[in-house]
Amino acid sequence: MASTKNFVLLLVSCATLQISIAGDPDILSDFIVPPVLKGPLDGNFFTFTGMRALVNAPFPTTFKVTKAAMAEFPALNGQSVSYAVLQFPNSTVNPPHTHPRASELLFLLMGSLEVGFVDTTNKLFTQTLQQGDIFVFPKGLVHFQFNRDANIPALALSAFGSANAGTVSVPNSVFNTTIDDQALALSFKTDVATIQKIKSGLSG
Amino acid sequence: MASTKNFVLLLVSCATLQISIAGDPDILSDFIVPPVLKGPLDGNFFTFTGMRALVNAPFPTTFKVTKAAMAEFPALNGQSVSYAVLQFPNSTVNPPHTHPRASELLFLLMGSLEVGFVDTTNKLFTQTLQQGDIFVFPKGLVHFQFNRDANIPALALSAFGSANAGTVSVPNSVFNTTIDDQALALSFKTDVATIQKIKSGLSG
Amino acid sequence: MASTKNFVLLLVSCATLQISIAGDPDILSDFIVPPVLKGPLDGNFFTFTGMRALVNAPFPTTFKVTKAAMAEFPALNGQSVSYAVLQFPNSTVNPPHTHPRASELLFLLMGSLEVGFVDTTNKLFTQTLQQGDIFVFPKGLVHFQFNRDANIPALALSAFGSANAGTVSVPNSVFNTTIDDQALALSFKTDVATIQKIKSGLSG
Amino acid sequence: MASTKNFVLLLVSCATLQISIAGDPDILSDFIVPPVLKGPLDGNFFTFTGMRALVNAPFPTTFKVTKAAMAEFPALNGQSVSYAVLQFPNSTVNPPHTHPRASELLFLLMGSLEVGFVDTTNKLFTQTLQQGDIFVFPKGLVHFQFNRDANIPALALSAFGSANAGTVSVPNSVFNTTIDDQALALSFKTDVATIQKIKSGLSG
Amino acid sequence: MASTKNFVLLLVSCATLQISIAGDPDILSDFIVPPVLKGPLDGNFFTFTGMRALVNAPFPTTFKVTKAAMAEFPALNGQSVSYAVLQFPNSTVNPPHTHPRASELLFLLMGSLEVGFVDTTNKLFTQTLQQGDIFVFPKGLVHFQFNRDANIPALALSAFGSANAGTVSVPNSVFNTTIDDQALALSFKTDVATIQKIKSGLSG
Amino acid sequence: MASTKNFVLLLVSCATLQISIAGDPDILSDFIVPPVLKGPLDGNFFTFTGMRALVNAPFPTTFKVTKAAMAEFPALNGQSVSYAVLQFPNSTVNPPHTHPRASELLFLLMGSLEVGFVDTTNKLFTQTLQQGDIFVFPKGLVHFQFNRDANIPALALSAFGSANAGTVSVPNSVFNTTIDDQALALSFKTDVATIQKIKSGLSG
Repeated sequence: MASTKNFVLLLVSCATLQISIAGDPDILSDFIVPPVLKGPLDGNFFTFTGMRALVNAPFPTTFKVTKAAMAEFPALNGQSVSYAVLQFPNSTVNPPHTHPRASELLFLLMGSLEVGFVDTTNKLFTQTLQQGDIFVFPKGLVHFQFNRDANIPALALSAFGSANAGTVSVPNSVFNTTIDDQALALSFKTDVATIQKIKSGLSG
Repeated sequence: MASTKNFVLLLVSCATLQISIAGDPDILSDFIVPPVLKGPLDGNFFTFTGMRALVNAPFPTTFKVTKAAMAEFPALNGQSVSYAVLQFPNSTVNPPHTHPRASELLFLLMGSLEVGFVDTTNKLFTQTLQQGDIFVFPKGLVHFQFNRDANIPALALSAFGSANAGTVSVPNSVFNTTIDDQALALSFKTDVATIQKIKSGLSG
Repeated sequence: MASTKNFVLLLVSCATLQISIAGDPDILSDFIVPPVLKGPLDGNFFTFTGMRALVNAPFPTTFKVTKAAMAEFPALNGQSVSYAVLQFPNSTVNPPHTHPRASELLFLLMGSLEVGFVDTTNKLFTQTLQQGDIFVFPKGLVHFQFNRDANIPALALSAFGSANAGTVSVPNSVFNTTIDDQALALSFKTDVATIQKIKSGLSG
Repeated sequence: MASTKNFVLLLVSCATLQISIAGDPDILSDFIVPPVLKGPLDGNFFTFTGMRALVNAPFPTTFKVTKAAMAEFPALNGQSVSYAVLQFPNSTVNPPHTHPRASELLFLLMGSLEVGFVDTTNKLFTQTLQQGDIFVFPKGLVHFQFNRDANIPALALSAFGSANAGTVSVPNSVFNTTIDDQALALSFKTDVATIQKIKSGLSG
Repeated sequence: MASTKNFVLLLVSCATLQISIAGDPDILSDFIVPPVLKGPLDGNFFTFTGMRALVNAPFPTTFKVTKAAMAEFPALNGQSVSYAVLQFPNSTVNPPHTHPRASELLFLLMGSLEVGFVDTTNKLFTQTLQQGDIFVFPKGLVHFQFNRDANIPALALSAFGSANAGTVSVPNSVFNTTIDDQALALSFKTDVATIQKIKSGLSG
Repeated sequence: MASTKNFVLLLVSCATLQISIAGDPDILSDFIVPPVLKGPLDGNFFTFTGMRALVNAPFPTTFKVTKAAMAEFPALNGQSVSYAVLQFPNSTVNPPHTHPRASELLFLLMGSLEVGFVDTTNKLFTQTLQQGDIFVFPKGLVHFQFNRDANIPALALSAFGSANAGTVSVPNSVFNTTIDDQALALSFKTDVATIQKIKSGLSG
C-alpha cells in the first residue's frame, strides 16, 4: 500500500511543479491598425506577399532566413504568431541561437535536417528530421539546424508563438561584438589567442 | 496651428484605444512533460511525425484538415504554437468557423484561395491569395477559405498562436446540434421549414 | 492494486491536460486616464450613468442590449471587466453569437430564459433559468438566449471578464455580409436559393 | 512652434507611461472540469442557483455579501469573471477593503450608495450613486460603500474580472488578528490603549 | 483501498484548485525606450545610480524607503521587476500596507526584523528574521515589518515582481484621507471620537 | 508645418511599435501550497534561510551563484520573483548566459563590476558598476559580468521577475554538450580543431 501511495504522491507533486501557463493573452480589439496606414483598411492589410519572390527563385547558395514577423507584416501586431522560411543549401547550418520571445515550430517541407536544442540543465536533445516532420524548439533555449547532406538542399517553414520572436545569434552575440577578450577567455576556459581567432573569422 | 494639434491629439487618442497586449506568457519550466511518458525523454518527444503520411499520399477528394496541436503532439503544451495542414480539392470550402483561442496565420503553398473574415463591426475583409501568400485571421472572428478553381487543388499550412486553438464550426454549432428550431428561425429571421431544411442537409 | 493506480494516473493526467491559466493580468498603474480627459479626474470618471435611462423606461418591444464597456465607459480600460443589460420581450431571442475576448456571466433578474452554448466538440449545453439564476458562457463559444414565454418579459445583467469582450453575431457575420453565395451553399450543404432567402430576411 | 511640439511630446510621453496590459489570458480548453464531478457534465454544471434563495427572502438587517465565485461555482475556473450580491440595510457600511486579484464593477439596482476608493498616491475618489449607476473600483485599491440613508435599503450587484477576486478586509486584517499592539500603535501614530480599544470592538 | 483512493482524490483536487498561473508575460521588444530619451541609448540607460547616495550616508532616524521602480528607473518598463531599500532605525515600523501589483521578496541584509502578512481568510503569518533571511509577502495582501530591537538598526532589500508594484498604506488610505467619519466608525465598530483621534495623529 | 506633423507622427508610430505588455499575471489564490507540505503552514513556509550560511562564510575562490528560486524556496511558486547571490573573487567572470524566463536586476553590494548584454540587433551595451549601482539585463538576452579588479572581490544580489528564471550558459550549452563538431565549426566560421580545443577546456 505505502509504495503505491508514495508513487502517487510523487506524480501529483511533479504535476504541480511542471504545470504552468500555456495560453496566450487576448488583445482588446479585433486587430491593431498602425496610426499611419497606407491606403484603406481592407484585405491587403491582412495579406503578406513578401514570400511570393521565393516561389520560383533559384535556391540560395548560403543559409537564408526570410521573415514574416511584425516588422515586415504589421497586421501581426497583437496576433501572437509569425513565420520564417528557412533555406538550407547542402552542408549548411543555422548557427546556435535563441528566440527570447517565442517557441519555434519547424515544419520540414523538403530534404532532411539535423536539429537540436539544449535545455537549462544542459541536456542536448537532437533529431534527424525527414520531409513532413515537425519539431518544437522550446522558448529561449539554444538550438540549431544542420543540413548535413552534401547534395540535397532542405527547406523548412517555422512558426513562432509571438509576432516578434527575436533572434539572439550565439556566434554573433558573443564573438562578433566587442566583449572583452580576457572576459571571454575566462568564460570559455581558453586563451585570448583562441578567442581572437574565432572573432576574426566571424568579423569577415 | 489648432488643426494640427487636434489632428495630433486624435492620433494619440487612437493609439491609446487600440494598443493592447500582444505578447505571450512564459511557462515556468523549459517544457512540460506529461505525468505518464511513453519511453525516455529524448528528441522523439519534441518531434511530430504525423504529417509524413501526407507527403506522398493522393490528394483527398473533400476538404481535409490535419492537425498538429496539443492533443496530437503533447510537447506543444506550454509552447503557445501549433499547426494544421489544409487540403482543398477543386471547388471546396472550409466553412465559416472561429478559433476561440488563437489567431490563424495561413501560408498558401499551392494553388489559389479566396479567404475572408468578418470583424466585430460586421465588416467583411476578403482576399484572393496566390502561391506563397500569407494571410492572418484575427483571433475569435468568423472566417472561411474557398478554392473556387474548378480544376486545381490548393494546399495551405496554418500556424496558430496557441497550442490548442480550438475550432467552432458555424454550420455544425448552429445547425447540427439540437438548438430549438423556433429559436433559430427567430434568430435568422426565417421560417422553421428553412431551418429544418438546412439542418437535414448537414446531419447527413 | 493495478486498477487503483491506473485510475489515479488517469486523474492526474486529466488534471494536467485541463489545468491552464485562469487569472487576469495586472496593469502597471492604478487606472488608465485617456490623453484627453473632459474635466478634472474625480469620481465622475469612474461612474457610468448610461443605465439610468433604463430604470423607469417602458420595456422595449424587441430584444435590446445596452452596454457598459470600454467604448461607453473609458475608465474600464485596463480593469478587465464590463457589463451589458439584456432585455427580452416575450418570445424573443438573442441570436447565436460569440464574444471573442471574454466569458459571459449572465444573472437573470426577471422572468425565465432558455440558454445554451456549443463547445468545440460540437456538444450543446442548455438550461432553463429562473429568476436569480446565474449561467456562464465560456469564452469564444457560440451561445444564445431565448425567452420562450409568450407573455412575460425577461431581464438579465451580463458581466464579461474583459473591458471589451466584442460580439460576433452568427446571422449577421455569415448571412448579412457579402460572403459569396456559392461558398455559403457549399458550407451549409444547401442550395444557393436557400442562402439567398436567409440573406434577404436578414438584410431587411 | 516649439510649444506645440512640447505639448505633443508631453502627451505622447503620458501615453507611454499609462498604457499597459488590459486584456485577459485565454485558457487552453473551453472550460475546466474538476477531477471529481458530481453527476454528468451538462447544463447544470454551468448554472449557479445559489442566488435563488435571495429572491423572495426578507432583506437582511446587517450588511451582507453573497458570492458566486470559484469556490461556490466551480465552472468559473478559467473564465476570469465572478459575481457578488451586496445588500445594504439603511445606515450600513461595507468596510474599507481590497480585492487582490480583480477590479470590481458595482451596479446599483436599488437605493442610493456613497462609494469611494483611494489610489496609490493616497487620493480619495468618491461618488454618490443613484439607481442604475455603475462604478468601477480599480484592482487592489482600498474602497468602501456606505448606505447613508436612514430608511431605504440599497441593493447592488458587483462583477469581478477574476474567478477568485479575494477580499482583504482592512478592519479585520489589521485589528482582528494578533498583530503586535506596539507595532500597530507606531503604525497609526497613536497609543496602545487606542489600538486595544479598536481591537476589542472588532473581536466581539 | 477506498481510503487510499480518497486520499489521492483529495490531493489531486487540491492541486486543481490551487494551481494557477505563475509566469510573467513577455514584451514584444528587447526593451522599451521612452519617446524622449536624454542622450544616446547606451549602458547608462540600463543603470540606476540613485542608491549610491545611501552607501556611505548616515543611517536615517525614521523608517525610510528608497525605490528603484519604473518612475525612478525608466528602463524597468516591460521588465517586470524592481527594487526598494528599506532602512529601519531601532524601534521603527513599516506600517501595514499592500502592493496591488506584485509580491515582495525581502532580503534582510543587517539586523533582525519581525515581519507578517494576513491572507484573505484573515490568517496572520509572522516570522522573526535574522541576517541573510528572505521572506515572501504574497501579492495584494496586508503586511508589515517591525524592528523591535531598541538599539540595532535593520537594513533590507526588497525585490518586486513588477516594474511598478505600487503601495497602498493602510493608515494613510483609511485615516489620512477624507473618508466620512461615520462610515469609518461603523466600519471599525468604534465611535467617531476614536476615528477622529487616529486621524489627527496621522495628519500631523 | 509639414515637418512638425511628420515628426509627431514618427513619435506616435514609435510608441505603437515599442509599447507592449509590462505587467505580471495574477494567481487565483493568495499563494500555492505544495500537495505534500512538511509541517504546518506557518511563517516558516514563507521564509528562506538558505542564505544564512553565506553571512559569515569565507569568500569563495571561484565565481559562485547561490539561488533562492522556486526549486529551493517553494513558496515562490506563483509569486513571479526570485533572488540569486553572486560572489565574484578578483579576476573572475560570470560567463555569457541568458535567462529564458525573466529579466535580471543586479544590485552591486560590494566592489566594482563590468557588465554587459547584447540585444537582438547585436548591439553590445556595457557599464562599469560601482557599489550601490543597479543594472537591468532584459529578458532572454546574452549577458555577462566581469570583476576585472585583481585584488578586490565583488558581491551582488540579483532579482528576477519570475520564480524560475532558468539559466542557459553559452559556453556549456554550445561547447560542453555533444553538438556535432562540424556543425559548430560551420557556425563559428572556424575549423574543427579550434572547436575541439574549446570543448576540451570546458569539459575538464
